[in-house]
Amino acid sequence: MHTVISLADLRPTRLSFAGTVGLVPTMGYLHEGHLSLIHRAREECDHVVVSIFVNPTQFGPKEDLAKYPRDLERDSKLIEPYTDLLWTPTAEIMYPQGYQTWVEVDAITQLLEGAMRPGHFKGVTTIVAKLFNIVQPHKAYFGQKDAQQAAVIRQMVRDLNFPVEIVVCPIVRELDGLAMSSRNVYLDPEQRKAATVLYRSLDQAKEAYENGERDADQLRQVLKDVLASEPLAQMQYVSCADYDTLKELAVVEGKALLSMAVYFGKTRLIDNFVLE
Amino acid sequence: MHTVISLADLRPTRLSFAGTVGLVPTMGYLHEGHLSLIHRAREECDHVVVSIFVNPTQFGPKEDLAKYPRDLERDSKLIEPYTDLLWTPTAEIMYPQGYQTWVEVDAITQLLEGAMRPGHFKGVTTIVAKLFNIVQPHKAYFGQKDAQQAAVIRQMVRDLNFPVEIVVCPIVRELDGLAMSSRNVYLDPEQRKAATVLYRSLDQAKEAYENGERDADQLRQVLKDVLASEPLAQMQYVSCADYDTLKELAVVEGKALLSMAVYFGKTRLIDNFVLE
Repeated sequence: MHTVISLADLRPTRLSFAGTVGLVPTMGYLHEGHLSLIHRAREECDHVVVSIFVNPTQFGPKEDLAKYPRDLERDSKLIEPYTDLLWTPTAEIMYPQGYQTWVEVDAITQLLEGAMRPGHFKGVTTIVAKLFNIVQPHKAYFGQKDAQQAAVIRQMVRDLNFPVEIVVCPIVRELDGLAMSSRNVYLDPEQRKAATVLYRSLDQAKEAYENGERDADQLRQVLKDVLASEPLAQMQYVSCADYDTLKELAVVEGKALLSMAVYFGKTRLIDNFVLE
Repeated sequence: MHTVISLADLRPTRLSFAGTVGLVPTMGYLHEGHLSLIHRAREECDHVVVSIFVNPTQFGPKEDLAKYPRDLERDSKLIEPYTDLLWTPTAEIMYPQGYQTWVEVDAITQLLEGAMRPGHFKGVTTIVAKLFNIVQPHKAYFGQKDAQQAAVIRQMVRDLNFPVEIVVCPIVRELDGLAMSSRNVYLDPEQRKAATVLYRSLDQAKEAYENGERDADQLRQVLKDVLASEPLAQMQYVSCADYDTLKELAVVEGKALLSMAVYFGKTRLIDNFVLE
């Protein structure tokens, strides 16, 4: 595995890759979820590039940029067997003096996470556009855990005609159902135990759906009721939305997304489930 | 010369090109200025792609989108000897139902043309980003006539790391000094004659500069005075700005741009001159 920081070091290594290249963009502090993306890239592409960059422009002024967990040494060891090139640029490399260009997706970024985190997706789409232009991958891998991020990036790629195939990989969960997340490390033991309520609420809504429930209000109510049963969980939103547009549904007919954001103390967790 | 409209037809032709590709993006109604870009691309690249697309998103609601001059048959004949691929997409191909992604450059688009034509550069940068992703050229050719457009695109390419070299070619002028423009066709004979005042004003300011004048207010005043001497010319702005940031200067020290926008009746013309 080559490890590079600067663009000048990245370019010759990238150019040395014959065949197809898969990119796994990450913010580091890697877990099994990230590894599942890397394994999928390994299966499908001749070369695997992993980027680790805690992108400042996707954090709001009151969010956890400074304390976002980092452990480059551990990350590097974890992925070494499966990765050809690890790229860890600095903020100065990605946003040099005088930087002033932004990629924005409109409607789909105004909902759910976008409504709660203004400017978040502007930071995400801008950095992903930059990563695509720099690495020029044939495929790029994202987790279904960040369901709206995946939808936003699919929309951006479609609209701006990026020559990159977006592959969205299933959520990887702990044995008790908690979706893997770098932010889980913020949870104290009690909160960690309580956090399984996200999965339990999704599971019950899914069961209602499988038993024939198609009224989106009823499905959202199942999510709310289960979340309300956990005293440490403070619901921010629950949603039952169209899979592509993320608009809230009245009735579930096609592919739909159940999703939610829930606080445990100051830690904000998200989770989701696709109904098809 | 292949001529294609759809993305499905464009892709196999583009993929058949070995070696380097030069892109000349245009809005059609081609003149000697466009041809100079095509000739330069021909000299520097193995294959030349010309796009003709009157991009609706860069026209304001009160601008001349509907009456912008078009003559595809004539354009096609003009460029055939020098062009490998002519691409003439429709608005529906470039902005399909549900389109919602925009590329925006901030500070540099707020000045000069950007101040007079709100939203104009958002349309320009978005369509150019799309053209780059679709055609994947090694080099792209723009005219110095649209000096701010060239500066904005250079900024976008630098910021978003597009793997494309931007080549800016000199203004091509009529024998009497009027810069070539598709919009010159709007001028009646009297206006056409009066329109040489743009070049004359730039020429006088340049002479003042060559005689040692470095006070930007004085240089702007020369432009204003010469423009004021032509009754049919209605000045919108004159500028003496830093070549890269386009910020107005107090004193000309490094590379600078003299530029202006002037109305003749309803027809708006721009012109510029680089001081180095």
